[in-house]
Amino acid sequence: MKIIIDAMGGDHAPEEIVAGVLSALEKFNDTSFLLTGDEAKIKALLSESAYDPDRIEIVPTTQVIEMDDSPVRALKEKKDSSMVVALNLLAEKKGDMLISAGCTGALVAGSTLVVKRLPGIKRPALAPVLPSQTGEVLLIDGGANADSKPQYLQQFGVMGSIYMQKVFGLEAPRVALINNGAEEEKGSELTKKAYQLLKQAPINFVGNAEGRELLSGEFDVLVCDGFTGNIVLKFLEGCAKTILGMLKGYVQESRSAKFGYLFMKGVFGKLKQKMDYKEYGGALLLGLNGGVMKAHGSSNRDAIFHAIAAARKFIAGDVVGAIGQEIAKLADEDEA
Amino acid sequence: MKIIIDAMGGDHAPEEIVAGVLSALEKFNDTSFLLTGDEAKIKALLSESAYDPDRIEIVPTTQVIEMDDSPVRALKEKKDSSMVVALNLLAEKKGDMLISAGCTGALVAGSTLVVKRLPGIKRPALAPVLPSQTGEVLLIDGGANADSKPQYLQQFGVMGSIYMQKVFGLEAPRVALINNGAEEEKGSELTKKAYQLLKQAPINFVGNAEGRELLSGEFDVLVCDGFTGNIVLKFLEGCAKTILGMLKGYVQESRSAKFGYLFMKGVFGKLKQKMDYKEYGGALLLGLNGGVMKAHGSSNRDAIFHAIAAARKFIAGDVVGAIGQEIAKLADEDEA
Repeated sequence: MKIIIDAMGGDHAPEEIVAGVLSALEKFNDTSFLLTGDEAKIKALLSESAYDPDRIEIVPTTQVIEMDDSPVRALKEKKDSSMVVALNLLAEKKGDMLISAGCTGALVAGSTLVVKRLPGIKRPALAPVLPSQTGEVLLIDGGANADSKPQYLQQFGVMGSIYMQKVFGLEAPRVALINNGAEEEKGSELTKKAYQLLKQAPINFVGNAEGRELLSGEFDVLVCDGFTGNIVLKFLEGCAKTILGMLKGYVQESRSAKFGYLFMKGVFGKLKQKMDYKEYGGALLLGLNGGVMKAHGSSNRDAIFHAIAAARKFIAGDVVGAIGQEIAKLADEDEA
Repeated sequence: MKIIIDAMGGDHAPEEIVAGVLSALEKFNDTSFLLTGDEAKIKALLSESAYDPDRIEIVPTTQVIEMDDSPVRALKEKKDSSMVVALNLLAEKKGDMLISAGCTGALVAGSTLVVKRLPGIKRPALAPVLPSQTGEVLLIDGGANADSKPQYLQQFGVMGSIYMQKVFGLEAPRVALINNGAEEEKGSELTKKAYQLLKQAPINFVGNAEGRELLSGEFDVLVCDGFTGNIVLKFLEGCAKTILGMLKGYVQESRSAKFGYLFMKGVFGKLKQKMDYKEYGGALLLGLNGGVMKAHGSSNRDAIFHAIAAARKFIAGDVVGAIGQEIAKLADEDEA
């Protein structure tokens, strides 16, 4: 397997990105890497460790797309950026997958432009994994398409289901539609139509999921438009922060709680880790003619390592090929 | 003040509803009540306490709208239900406000039909109060209109701002638009247009609020369409449950954490209370020609008491009158 890494993307690039690659290099013998970025900096970081030079190749680039760049303009003007060069390498099949912790907007737009959609795919979608009460749940679309049509949501359901089959090994992932009511007839104009299309799709569609059930463990895939997905993803982060913040405030107000807290530090650490989506290895961009993974902008070396581990499963399961096949079948059925 | 109470609405009606009214009767000397519902049952419940019979009037009704009734059909077929009769009493100005813990869909539809919108109001909106890191924040629309237009959102911003001024005593409530990015140009088709309209409205509009900031305490009013509001409201409940559930699970796994937990019970109780929106006295339906409050379906006596306390502030601040004036001004400006 060969994984392309945008070594300059993210808040802690290239230091933490290169460190994550070095950990993966040690752990996974069958994987090699293609790094795009500042050659001198990357070489200096690599020189601190012993590694097999045959398994790391650097493609030197001179530009970086920054978080506050306008995505579309940056893609046009920064042709020699680590991200654009990495996207081109993936499009040319120089690697099996691309991981970037750079600007989400640029990565989504650039992937569609350079790597291109699979035939029949209306819109690629961002698919992050969230923690649930019993394990994990895939959110799709996590923010690529603010305005969506019913058919996009049907395709999101199919793509999400394949992902959970191939990467998480689930036989019949339970796919639900995020909606404002449990009953079939509930919803906005968009979700009412999407419900009917998801019912017809070749997936294990289990109906609507209301806000309070999203993390209950009853579902494996949560389908929504990218606006809703963006709010859900970020609100989860906000809720976790707010709730733990309140708890810490209350602890400070009470002497006995402060004492008790000393014995519960491990528990709070575990919770923080569970709620930290860096652990889940980044969000996939599904529907493209190649594997693109968006790692969190603040990824540290562990996050990059986990992203690489998840990417390996994605490649091994040939998720791209499986999505291509299913979407082609769905299109044939629509025509028949 | 006279408050109309749907005594049969909610999971614990009429017992807890009547008990809540009795508490309020004791606490607030200036308030009397008009209860709709099963006269025999209500009288039996009242007879358990000493109360001033001049301050409670019962309007007997024979039907109840159930949670699983179709709202529109129920409104047509159950003319003698406690909710419909209560709505008619409010429309006839027999009371200053109506509180119901019954089916939200029926209450929203029935209010629009019977109590009617204020002149110029496009859509009434549900406005629940959520806990924030520093106090409270109003969410509007919390679920009345799944499909919204930009102008509705502008009106939601104006109504929410007035509510926080009159009921919470804030001078210039900070109104934000829930959006998928911080910058002005971010958003769906709906939120991009709504942003421009909110900017022009006579409110303290402070821009977009991303998911992770909703409860940060930086905002007093969060504006969104009813689909998004429904998801946010219920997801908050789900997150709180999931996070506390995970924490309890981890506590069980560790002997020292179990010991520490004994000293932290008070803290967890406080947190649970803070996250429990029953404490916040129900969600207002704003934009109607009368005050309608939706108490949570699972309201107990305390929740009903808090709802009555909030209703008193709503009446005292003449929120209905203030909204009517502001919306009329806004309409005049649009024409000018």
